[in-house]
Amino acid sequence: MNVLTAIKERTSYRGPYQPTKVPREDLIQIMEAGLAAPSGCNKQTTSLIAVDDPDVLRKLNGVIGMPTVETAPAMICVLAQQIIAYRGRTFYIQDYSAAIQNMLLATVGLGYQTCWYEGQITDTDAIGRKMADILGVPADYEMVCFLPIGVAAQPVNFVQKKPFGERAWFNGFKV
Amino acid sequence: MNVLTAIKERTSYRGPYQPTKVPREDLIQIMEAGLAAPSGCNKQTTSLIAVDDPDVLRKLNGVIGMPTVETAPAMICVLAQQIIAYRGRTFYIQDYSAAIQNMLLATVGLGYQTCWYEGQITDTDAIGRKMADILGVPADYEMVCFLPIGVAAQPVNFVQKKPFGERAWFNGFKV
Repeated sequence: MNVLTAIKERTSYRGPYQPTKVPREDLIQIMEAGLAAPSGCNKQTTSLIAVDDPDVLRKLNGVIGMPTVETAPAMICVLAQQIIAYRGRTFYIQDYSAAIQNMLLATVGLGYQTCWYEGQITDTDAIGRKMADILGVPADYEMVCFLPIGVAAQPVNFVQKKPFGERAWFNGFKV
Repeated sequence: MNVLTAIKERTSYRGPYQPTKVPREDLIQIMEAGLAAPSGCNKQTTSLIAVDDPDVLRKLNGVIGMPTVETAPAMICVLAQQIIAYRGRTFYIQDYSAAIQNMLLATVGLGYQTCWYEGQITDTDAIGRKMADILGVPADYEMVCFLPIGVAAQPVNFVQKKPFGERAWFNGFKV
């Protein structure tokens, strides 16, 4: 799929998935896309765990508790480390966000659907930490996001966005 | 260009640019790619200003002060608003990072090169605020990043990254 098409076709799919398995080579391609994203000072602060073992998926879904996510045959969990790039600054949020965006596009490009679930697991109930414990992730890695991966079982919807002219201009603000 | 190819071909180009102009329709396509990125609770916290007017570019480069960037025939400036998505949380860094990643890929897909310049303008010397003032950007928008856009005048280099197995695993940490 063309890159501009993938960018336009990508949407946040929150419906159920078909039971069709996602081959390992596709999960690898999606993770490679994530790891290919830039990172501040090339610190590579993002790591990934793909989950396709039904037992592990069941355990993760036990703490996530979202019925549509339970139908996904695979999931990619995103881990982040707050590594300093320079002068006491870390760009780890930017790093993992760029990695996630690449993975969303690769997922769509390979014919699957996904959704960026972050706030749902990084809230005060710390679902992300519970997921990390299930996967044996040490405390210096934060579980910041998960992406269900699979073939959509329902039509894909697009959210309404503001018109171009309300968010983009030339040579000056609101010009 | 295929989406997976664009993801692999994208790199941080810090060399000089050819004087070839970037047509408006290409700048629009790149900005549309940025605006197509997801945002937390669809708050659309990212806005963009493309600059292709040589006088405005000269003024911006007067505060940026990077000789290779001065050769770029166009630039896209990224503005962010710290809008609350829910429960007092904003996802504006994630939002603009996803938008930037989309724009990096669209830029490469259209045959240009670019680089994510963020830390250079958001440090204590507040270059981003000076750029914002030149463009008439109000105080509730932060100038968080700029992307020079143009045809590379030198070969493109790729940074060395850790091997897949050091950053990605299946069904458990370092498995």
